[in-house]
Amino acid sequence: MSKTNPGNFFEDFTVGQVLEHATPRTVTEGDRALYGALYPTRFAVPSSAEFAASVGLQPAPVEELIAFHIAFGKTVPDISLNAVANLGYAECRFHQPVVPGDTLRTTSEVIGVKENSNGKSGVVYVRSTATNQRGEVALDWARWVMVHKRDHAAPAPEAVVPTLAAALDPSDLVIPAGLDFSDYDFAAAGEPHRWSDYEVGEKIDHVDGVSLTDPEHMLATRLWQNTAKVHFNTEARPDGTRLIYGGHVISMARALSFNGLANAQLIAAINAGAHTSPAFAGDTVYAWSEVLDQAETGAPGVGALRLRLVATKGRDESMTLRGEDGKYAAGVLLDLDYWALIPR
Amino acid sequence: MSKTNPGNFFEDFTVGQVLEHATPRTVTEGDRALYGALYPTRFAVPSSAEFAASVGLQPAPVEELIAFHIAFGKTVPDISLNAVANLGYAECRFHQPVVPGDTLRTTSEVIGVKENSNGKSGVVYVRSTATNQRGEVALDWARWVMVHKRDHAAPAPEAVVPTLAAALDPSDLVIPAGLDFSDYDFAAAGEPHRWSDYEVGEKIDHVDGVSLTDPEHMLATRLWQNTAKVHFNTEARPDGTRLIYGGHVISMARALSFNGLANAQLIAAINAGAHTSPAFAGDTVYAWSEVLDQAETGAPGVGALRLRLVATKGRDESMTLRGEDGKYAAGVLLDLDYWALIPR
Amino acid sequence: MSKTNPGNFFEDFTVGQVLEHATPRTVTEGDRALYGALYPTRFAVPSSAEFAASVGLQPAPVEELIAFHIAFGKTVPDISLNAVANLGYAECRFHQPVVPGDTLRTTSEVIGVKENSNGKSGVVYVRSTATNQRGEVALDWARWVMVHKRDHAAPAPEAVVPTLAAALDPSDLVIPAGLDFSDYDFAAAGEPHRWSDYEVGEKIDHVDGVSLTDPEHMLATRLWQNTAKVHFNTEARPDGTRLIYGGHVISMARALSFNGLANAQLIAAINAGAHTSPAFAGDTVYAWSEVLDQAETGAPGVGALRLRLVATKGRDESMTLRGEDGKYAAGVLLDLDYWALIPR
Repeated sequence: MSKTNPGNFFEDFTVGQVLEHATPRTVTEGDRALYGALYPTRFAVPSSAEFAASVGLQPAPVEELIAFHIAFGKTVPDISLNAVANLGYAECRFHQPVVPGDTLRTTSEVIGVKENSNGKSGVVYVRSTATNQRGEVALDWARWVMVHKRDHAAPAPEAVVPTLAAALDPSDLVIPAGLDFSDYDFAAAGEPHRWSDYEVGEKIDHVDGVSLTDPEHMLATRLWQNTAKVHFNTEARPDGTRLIYGGHVISMARALSFNGLANAQLIAAINAGAHTSPAFAGDTVYAWSEVLDQAETGAPGVGALRLRLVATKGRDESMTLRGEDGKYAAGVLLDLDYWALIPR
Repeated sequence: MSKTNPGNFFEDFTVGQVLEHATPRTVTEGDRALYGALYPTRFAVPSSAEFAASVGLQPAPVEELIAFHIAFGKTVPDISLNAVANLGYAECRFHQPVVPGDTLRTTSEVIGVKENSNGKSGVVYVRSTATNQRGEVALDWARWVMVHKRDHAAPAPEAVVPTLAAALDPSDLVIPAGLDFSDYDFAAAGEPHRWSDYEVGEKIDHVDGVSLTDPEHMLATRLWQNTAKVHFNTEARPDGTRLIYGGHVISMARALSFNGLANAQLIAAINAGAHTSPAFAGDTVYAWSEVLDQAETGAPGVGALRLRLVATKGRDESMTLRGEDGKYAAGVLLDLDYWALIPR
Repeated sequence: MSKTNPGNFFEDFTVGQVLEHATPRTVTEGDRALYGALYPTRFAVPSSAEFAASVGLQPAPVEELIAFHIAFGKTVPDISLNAVANLGYAECRFHQPVVPGDTLRTTSEVIGVKENSNGKSGVVYVRSTATNQRGEVALDWARWVMVHKRDHAAPAPEAVVPTLAAALDPSDLVIPAGLDFSDYDFAAAGEPHRWSDYEVGEKIDHVDGVSLTDPEHMLATRLWQNTAKVHFNTEARPDGTRLIYGGHVISMARALSFNGLANAQLIAAINAGAHTSPAFAGDTVYAWSEVLDQAETGAPGVGALRLRLVATKGRDESMTLRGEDGKYAAGVLLDLDYWALIPR
């Protein structure tokens, strides 16, 4: 009997099933440093313990995407080892800041299954929840992924497709306890732009680009204990290239967005995310953002901006998301819809 | 007078000589994070402070191989700067867990010398001991290495060849104080297989592969303050390639072995190790294991497995160690014999 | 209105102007670990908490160059985003050790401006000061940089060129409070050479070389939150190469200088620095040093050595700084003049 993990196939998933994922993982200051080496991030809250304390967060949280990548990575061996494609995310909420010393574990519940008409694969919907060492929810999200069937002759299950919100309502955002932007230091943060300086429909070209390399995305992806073969093994894909973990592109784009969104300090939620094209070493990633919505929050001085963050291969100063055919424009790598918290 | 270190040559070593190696090195959470970025490790004890505490280890130790690489790296400038080849290890024991904040220093005693018949080099045997800031032994090991003579005309010393155990007896293993696997959480650890599920002679193909890159092995090898030129300097070898530190292959193989040996949480001892072929950037490393022996221990719920860990260049599903000629099969990079601790 | 930072141009700088730079940055043990992975450093004080405590420094400071790179990186978006060239440093003093937990912020005062005769650019002189979370000065330095004019027709400002010392006087060096080399452990530090073993004019070839890679210098430069495009973006330069941050070469050369200067534990000041040639991935960096001056200090057992640290592309055993024409010899990458503290 094999002792190794073959991963789950489509017919292994049933609605209501709960999967407890290995391995619990303690976040450390080492993760913060590595994140800063891997991505050109300069947001003041995760960068400075003093700044974080000045806005009510002590100890300083790590970037939300560190928590996301760690929590997400745990689901890979059980959910997407035999995936054809990651199709999307929705309803990702950050329930509280994650700080060094916190230990995250993730469980997933299957909330939908739908076999494809070809009978060879199907879509699995899961809601994943990462909890900390006190059993409190740190973040949760829904995700759907296309998974191979082990046996094409296996009968199709009854199709269940969950209803997922296109975007979280501002009233559903969780504002970190104690967050107070009343005495926010704009000079230290790097830009003067506040919530009211942005308007819906506004687009921001973040200017800077980073050319990707294989060692860097592997360091990142390993750090999150993400085991998908295609990121590490040149023998796993016919063309001998390593596919770059989509989360690497998310973090790169988010870091690049500092230039123009330096005060969008915290990510409260991810409404939707699509990896529209694969990225490879040698690609130069640029980013632009579009303001989709604005909302007030109950926390002192804290506003919320709903933003579309687009990563592109090569700079597109026209900031074109889709062509006239409605399809994503060539060069678009990522279309991410999220809520950020920013001083009002 | 040169102030730089020319390294020791064969005739500089005499039996009984003690060498105190520079530089003492404090282990930090940064080392743990970097190790996780460099190797696809997911063992629950070093990954999670909560899990470690649940088995009686608090604070959470770092992987034994971090301690080994740091302690080993210190010996390089004094022992193997003028080495022709590292020939082997034996009797490596981990006497207690190493945790962030511990400072390691290493001393070596020469326990054997034997000039080669060609008169140009000889084999030096040392026993190296790494102690922590309290003066307690953290780990020790024997190693033998072939070293150039400075002066081929120098007379041969009396040959002294120490007797080293082929493998440590289970009764000689040091179980970390407080280790208790009675309430072990198999779901969190990632696999259900316990000590009694393995049997002597069983082989496990660990499935996954990682393609090596130069920046990654240099980051690792520098972290251990290992100064051997061939790992860093493309001008140090005629073919312009960098030779990958053998310890990088050990750590990669150990991390890959998670898939099938997820519960082999701790390394208690290394019985023997041979780097049978050099590894270079571009090679894809796979691993397989063979169960060599099993033993009980006095600690609650703790069993010991003696394992052969084999790293290969390219996957060998046949798991062939040696050809019919008795020589290592093509593609075998590493043959490591160690004792792991695993829940019974 | 663009929300992104276009950087300052020559005519944006006026003498007396003070710029507060983003982003404050907390130093962690993760930075120390990454520094050790990126550079082959083995100096005992930053490597070992025990050793540092034994010479009066508790907690163990990080390498001064970590503080320098972080503090320097903050000035890039405001001072040198539109720079033609970094021309030099002077009067850099380390006022106190930086330890994990310290948060650094940097401000700069413009101390000189001088338009070039071509009317297209000019030289800007700034004095930058990095303070910690207690408002104490951690380090300060002067720097001059050639910056593009936005509008070539803009009138030239009155030229102001500050007087900067060719080298700091030994009496101006700040010795870390409590530093005491009376019971210095030479064996642990790695070399027996003390202050009195060096003499002015002596040159030391540090022997070892490191071949540079793109991922490694990007990891380093990002860690310091240095945003200069040319280090990260292959589309930012016509030849598609990434220019290596000069500070990466400084740190590499300083680490290589361990071999021959292992006891030059602390950098007290940088008198001058010139990046005489660009460095690129594939270059193999070597280093040599020249003793320029010696001084006693008031601290027990502590001497100061003024050293020239030269990094070269390829090894130059002749240790030639300049050719007969007075120009830097081919292959010289860096000429750095600094004061180190070493046991007397």
